[in-house]
Amino acid sequence: MLSKNQIKLIKSLGQKKYRQQLGLFIVEGIKGINEFLNSDFELETLYTTKSIFDVPANRILEISEVDLKKISTLKNPNTALAVFKMPKQQDPSGIGLIIALDAIRDPGNLGTIIRLCDWYGVKDLVCSLNTVDCYNTKVIQATMGSLTRVNVSYLNLETYLESSITEVFGAFMNGENIYTTDLPNEGIVILGNEANGISNVIESKVKRKVTIPQFGNTKSTESLNVANATAIVLSEFRRQSIGK
Amino acid sequence: MLSKNQIKLIKSLGQKKYRQQLGLFIVEGIKGINEFLNSDFELETLYTTKSIFDVPANRILEISEVDLKKISTLKNPNTALAVFKMPKQQDPSGIGLIIALDAIRDPGNLGTIIRLCDWYGVKDLVCSLNTVDCYNTKVIQATMGSLTRVNVSYLNLETYLESSITEVFGAFMNGENIYTTDLPNEGIVILGNEANGISNVIESKVKRKVTIPQFGNTKSTESLNVANATAIVLSEFRRQSIGK
Repeated sequence: MLSKNQIKLIKSLGQKKYRQQLGLFIVEGIKGINEFLNSDFELETLYTTKSIFDVPANRILEISEVDLKKISTLKNPNTALAVFKMPKQQDPSGIGLIIALDAIRDPGNLGTIIRLCDWYGVKDLVCSLNTVDCYNTKVIQATMGSLTRVNVSYLNLETYLESSITEVFGAFMNGENIYTTDLPNEGIVILGNEANGISNVIESKVKRKVTIPQFGNTKSTESLNVANATAIVLSEFRRQSIGK
Repeated sequence: MLSKNQIKLIKSLGQKKYRQQLGLFIVEGIKGINEFLNSDFELETLYTTKSIFDVPANRILEISEVDLKKISTLKNPNTALAVFKMPKQQDPSGIGLIIALDAIRDPGNLGTIIRLCDWYGVKDLVCSLNTVDCYNTKVIQATMGSLTRVNVSYLNLETYLESSITEVFGAFMNGENIYTTDLPNEGIVILGNEANGISNVIESKVKRKVTIPQFGNTKSTESLNVANATAIVLSEFRRQSIGK
């Protein structure tokens, strides 16, 4: 049986302010929880309707389906909800290919981008301070556990780029054709906000603008979704690296 | 002022059954509506809070913000909601690169894939009969108007593939490396269901299995999201076509 205070605390983790105050965040569903349990992340408490997890007894609380519904952020809660401790932010390693995000606002996009970084072996994802919080519950859901393998850091992006010694790329509508330009094995690649792209101040730090060319006769007025653009950019950097 | 019957009719278009019975579907937001108005799609009625559209007077109804909220499917309705007539389904042209979907269920994924087809100049998107309806309001929102430029047809996918004379590709976890195998300028490329991939019966029609290889040391247990996989596959087909 969950107490009112427990329910209140868990519910409060839906807000960034309380996540940061308490240093806690939520993971839901068996698969995602297991990925976090098998990582360096530290469990605070696991609330579950079934005893199927390998977790110390003092960290687990069996609850009813009704209670799970009360604390879950999902329409269809899946067996368990875990509260994990937010680790201390680590500086980007600065090695290899790094993705940097300028003001990404949609949690689904950030989650998908973390998953793409994981797939393409990108260790560091650097986010501007106004990018959506990676411990947002919707981001966690969309990452499918990839957050355990990608180091996400929130930094003043301008200062970070100024101090970086590696080549800075940015995805724009009017840059070099990404398919025909020569891409290195390492560097920083910036993707911009869903509506406005890369901001002027960040643009001024970009050394090489790259573009995913549009095909077909009818030119559509919309750009690609930022997660898809990230997929294509990462794919092309990695493809070119194979031959080197 | 909207009548109760009008509200009921518009609300009913949230369900596939009624969309098909009535042959109507909903588009919301200024940009999306304008894309459909400037296409071959035929407007039934435009409900708007501002007279900013170039539409015959007998097809337009000025309504209040309150009424728009009543009929909108969005949390934050954007100025207008239009009801368009569903066109008669057209057979795929069979020319060039064709994307085929096997049981895609998420409206956001289908919408994004339609947008990707538009970007990469794919004229035909063939969907299995159990793929989510492209006139679903969430699909329409995610397409950003691209549905006006991509011919989406719902067919028995098995029969369609059997009768096709072009090469059939499928995205799998264990196929040829998409970056190093030689891809033609035309053919059919199948992407499968979010949870289960391509079904066995469809797999048996695939001539060439292709795979997006995973990079990095830690192998993640999750595959890529199907919309991202489509982005990367389309990108690679088109990239290879440049040099030919």
